[in-house]
Formats: sequence, C-alpha cells, structure tokens
Amino acid sequence: MHTVCVSLGDRSYPIYIGAGLLNCPELILPRLPRKHVAIVSNETVAPLYMARLRNSLQSVGVESLPIVVPDGEGFKDCATLNLILDALLGARRERTTTVVALGGGVVGDLAGFAAAIYLRGVPFVQVPTTLLAQVDSSVGGKTGINHPLGKNMIGAFYQPRLVLADLETLSTLPDRELSAGIAEVIKYGLIRDRLFFEWLGANVDRLLAREPDALTFAIRRSCEAKAQLVGADERESGVRALLNLGHTFGHAIEAGLGYGQWLHGEAVAAGTMLAAELSSRLGFIGDQEVERLGRLYRRARLPTTAPDLGADRYLSLMQGDKKVEAGRVRFVLLKSIGEAFVTADVPEPLLRDVLSRASLHV
Amino acid sequence: MHTVCVSLGDRSYPIYIGAGLLNCPELILPRLPRKHVAIVSNETVAPLYMARLRNSLQSVGVESLPIVVPDGEGFKDCATLNLILDALLGARRERTTTVVALGGGVVGDLAGFAAAIYLRGVPFVQVPTTLLAQVDSSVGGKTGINHPLGKNMIGAFYQPRLVLADLETLSTLPDRELSAGIAEVIKYGLIRDRLFFEWLGANVDRLLAREPDALTFAIRRSCEAKAQLVGADERESGVRALLNLGHTFGHAIEAGLGYGQWLHGEAVAAGTMLAAELSSRLGFIGDQEVERLGRLYRRARLPTTAPDLGADRYLSLMQGDKKVEAGRVRFVLLKSIGEAFVTADVPEPLLRDVLSRASLHV
Repeated sequence: MHTVCVSLGDRSYPIYIGAGLLNCPELILPRLPRKHVAIVSNETVAPLYMARLRNSLQSVGVESLPIVVPDGEGFKDCATLNLILDALLGARRERTTTVVALGGGVVGDLAGFAAAIYLRGVPFVQVPTTLLAQVDSSVGGKTGINHPLGKNMIGAFYQPRLVLADLETLSTLPDRELSAGIAEVIKYGLIRDRLFFEWLGANVDRLLAREPDALTFAIRRSCEAKAQLVGADERESGVRALLNLGHTFGHAIEAGLGYGQWLHGEAVAAGTMLAAELSSRLGFIGDQEVERLGRLYRRARLPTTAPDLGADRYLSLMQGDKKVEAGRVRFVLLKSIGEAFVTADVPEPLLRDVLSRASLHV
Repeated sequence: MHTVCVSLGDRSYPIYIGAGLLNCPELILPRLPRKHVAIVSNETVAPLYMARLRNSLQSVGVESLPIVVPDGEGFKDCATLNLILDALLGARRERTTTVVALGGGVVGDLAGFAAAIYLRGVPFVQVPTTLLAQVDSSVGGKTGINHPLGKNMIGAFYQPRLVLADLETLSTLPDRELSAGIAEVIKYGLIRDRLFFEWLGANVDRLLAREPDALTFAIRRSCEAKAQLVGADERESGVRALLNLGHTFGHAIEAGLGYGQWLHGEAVAAGTMLAAELSSRLGFIGDQEVERLGRLYRRARLPTTAPDLGADRYLSLMQGDKKVEAGRVRFVLLKSIGEAFVTADVPEPLLRDVLSRASLHV
C-alpha cells in the first residue's frame, strides 16, 4: 500500500492506494467520529462493491446505511442530490454520521456536496472506484452538481477525511471509462511533469492492459501532483487552476452535447487538443507537439476531435466558466509539454478560428 | 454608528449598527472584490428598500442585480434557493460578484446559502432589515433552508464579509415582527447576561415604542454577545449551542404547524417557556422565575403557550434536531436567569409530561 498526504493543516488527510483496500476497514475506522456511516453509490457500482464495503465495515462494528442513486453524469443534478439528502433525513442520520462515496467522479461529487450541506456539514470519506476518480476527482475537496447552464456550477470546497483507492475495483471498469481516466493522468504530465508524460508515452499500453504495477505508479504519481497543488492552493486562487487544462473547452463540450453523452475524460482529451492547438497558434508549442499529444490520446482510445457545436455556442458556454473574470475567459495553455500557464490574452478571432475548425482537427 | 467585530482570524468582519446606513455605501465598498453585486430581497422588503440600496451603491459605481423572492418562512426551501441560483447563473454572475441579503432572517439564510454554493462560494454581505435578523440571524454565518422533516436541515456555515444594520429599516417593521425579534433579544439576557435581562424588564415598552436609543442598546448588546459566542465556537461544538435556548422546542413548533404559521421568534418564546418549565421541574429554577419570564414575554406580545401538537409528535420532531447525539436530544436549559447549559439528561416521562401539558401552561 502507498500513502500520499494532502497537507491542509488540521484538515490534512491521507490517500491510501493499494489492492484489496475495501477489505481494510481499519484504515477507515480511525477517521469516523462514531460507528455509523451512509454509503452513497450508484446502480452500477453498488451491486459490485456495496456488500463488500458494508461487510468489511460491519466486521469492525460500523453500521451502514446504503443510498443508491442512478448512474451517469446526467444525474449529477439537484434532483439526485435531494434523493441523498432525503435518505439521510428520512433515516435521521446525525451530525456524527460519516458520508462515504463509493463510485466514480459523479458519485464523489454528489456525495461530497451532500456531506457539505447536510446539517451544515458532516464528515466525508472518498472510496473512488474509477481510474478518473482515483487520480483526480476524489482528491482536493471539489464537490458539486451541474446546472443546465454549466458544469459544476453549484457546489462547495469540502475536503474528505480520507481517500481509499482500491486497485481491485478497476478490474470491473469498462474500457471506455479506463480510457477516460487516462485522460486525467496525461494531464498531470502535460501541466508540470514532462518525465511522467514520457513515461506515459512508453507505458500507455500497460495501463490499458490494466497491469497493476503500471496502474499503481500512474495513480500514485497523479495523486502526488494533485495533493501538492491542492495543498498549495486549496481554493484555486492560483496554481491549482492549472488542473483545469482542457476543462474550459471540455465542460463546454459536456454541457453542449448534454451531460453524459461524452464521458468527462473524453471531453477533457478533446478539450486539451483545442488548448494545445491554441497554444500552438499563439507560438508557444510546435505543431509536432500537438501531433504527439494527439497520438498519445488516440493510443489511449480517446477522442482528439471536438464536436462541431459552432464557435458561437462554444463561446457562449465558455462565458459561464467559473474562471471567467470581468467577462474574460481565462485559459490554461501549454508553454511546452510539461509546463502549463493561465492567460486571458487570447484574441477572439484566433479563438473563433480554432473553435470553428474544431471538428476538422484530426 | 456603533461597530461590533466578529473575530474569526482572516474571516473576521464588522457589524455596523446605526440609523441611515443604507445611505453609506462607503461602508460596503471596501469589502467588495469587484464593483458588482446581486441583491437578494423579498416581495415585502424590496419595494421599501431595494431602490435605496441600489442607488446608494450606484453612487460609488457599484452595479447591482436585483433578485426578489417570495416572503415568508414557508418559502425558505429548495425551490426558492434554486430561483436565486438560476438568476445568478442566468445573468452570468462571476466568482467576484458579491451576494447581498436585504431582508429578514429568511432572506439572509437563503441568500447566504446561495452565496456559499454558487460557483463553490462567492463573497456575501448581510443587510438585515428586521430586529430578529439584526440581533441574531445575520451574525455568525449560519445559512440554510428548511426541509419538510426539519428546520435548517440543509445549509452551510458561511460567514458574511460585513453586517450592515440600518435602524431606519425597523420603522416599517410590522409590530408582530418587532415582537418576534425581541424574543431573540431576551434570549441573550437569559443565557448569560442577567443584567441585560433586568434592563429588558425595565425597557421592553421602549423597545415596542421603537425608541432609537433603546433599540440601539438592545441590538448592540445582542450583537456583542453573539459575536463573542461565534468567535469562541464558530461551528457550534461547544458554547455556541447555548444560543439554541428554546430552539429545539421552537423548531418543532415551526415544523409541526407548517413553516410560516408562527414566526420564528414566536416559536422561540413558546419553546423557551417549555425549556424553562423543564428547568423548573428538574429543580434548577423556581416557579417564580418561570412566571417572571412569562410576564416579560407577554409584555413583549409574545406567545407563552406552545401549540398542542401532542407529546409524541413533539418527540418525533425533536429527534431530528441537529443537536441529537446517539439518538439523545440535547436540551439547552436554565440554571438560573442569566445562565444556560446543555444537557441530554432529561428523563423521558418528565419531558412527556411537560409536553403534554404544553397547551395548558399559561
């Protein structure tokens, strides 16, 4: 087992990474104020792992309330949030009840937000079961729901007390979801770790083949990067914004096509290609680097071509981005592979040109 | 003008108390990251004060978006919260937009919760226009909404950057709302300030006559008490719980009758009478102190008799209280007038007896 620590003063917490951790309730127990939890999961993950986690917790005397919600980004909304809150209230769960998220990014975001606002805040634990959640969304305390006008528009910064990433849960992950997770892994290489990007170029097939050593290394390296950025800038007033590489475009893709059409990681891959193209047109990186990135995404079975929503629609969707300041969209771009930066200095004609050629860019 | 400070490290903030403060935008301006705000108010308060506040802010270059919601505790729910969020999103308000609550406790709780979760948190300012909001709910960062199963069940601790209490707004307050505010003023005397309780006994008629000096003194003394308790225990793990005197019973009354039937302050007065009766039956205070309290409430035109919901219904509603721990309701009781304490040691038969005689207790 590996442990990565997120350092946030008295809200610091460990990320445990290893195989079979669902069967290690002693990792969770010390983080619970009392021996009762509510486990939020979805209709896909619950049949696979809910009983295992509940039995494991029961073996150390922890009583659990299962709450199962529908699966998919299209359900990360106010209605599903209310399902969770109603279940907690209906069962009269108290302030000392810990909410546990068992699932991917959608479950983690929903359960974390419910924990943040139930009785004005109860303890929260992340048990991510997708690669994307293990390397990215379960770490750092971003929780929330989507709104028809934009992704993650309603939410809270609310840190978990513990992240438990059990590699065994990846064995049941559909290939498409595995690839979506690799998109966020590649992101860490792009924004500040060229060496890791090189490693990914050499090892992406091992990740696709789910080789445990390769997965462990990728998850650990990703969590270390995320923990460092979150520890330095919890509420994204500075360096943490780099983690949004590809996300301003990606969120527009997700909202524009309707949540759940593309997986989040797929939208991030295509969105990062747009960011790379923009970086190239602005003279920061060369065409060959854009192509190199595209090749890696394709090897990871990720889309490199954004859907043709039209430049106007993209611009309109991006205007709602949380990073917009004084009406100006702030982009995360690449100075090189391994070095990202934030800028609002993107001429609109150039942006429009990149967006209007989006669907042609292969 | 008087200033009371709430000390919470880098989230400390001032409470300004005085007449005509709506016309002092220079008090608000330094607290805004940018010169745009969204002002949340209700259909009763907006016609009276929205234009005044908007013009005042405009005079220093601050642009404002008015958001008007229905009036009353019955609208402190998920639907009204979504109205506010939709308005913010529809107008593409950014992270640097400050949400301003202009109204009573319901508006403050709704707007504050919206500020807490919009884009994962934007700045927030309280401009309370009722006595209850000026002495209690606008200070301390408790925000949230009601749920059919309990009051304030969903919410966040989210501190304002500033509280601006303009005494002139009390001139339009209905008598019934003025009395409801006095219930929370009396609370401060009861829990830790016997001298203030004596002062209230001598001056309650001046408060009802809205004499500015009396109101100013009562608001200031109340805010000082609240600021001290909040500064010592922001998230209510200890001493802050004393502020809930009468509220466990009061919330049950509000939820049991349907939100909005009784004003919050009215339910707190009748709820405090139950707490006092319980304190007396347990031997802490004497009958004559219970009677003395009842006389003060009646002089303030507040109810001293709780509605007859039946003991079972009261117990069931109170089981959902946020202070419940391990299934046991924790009560705030009186050791004497001027000294409250928290206890879970209340025999159920005694509690049932007090509750079943609730409607008879005059």
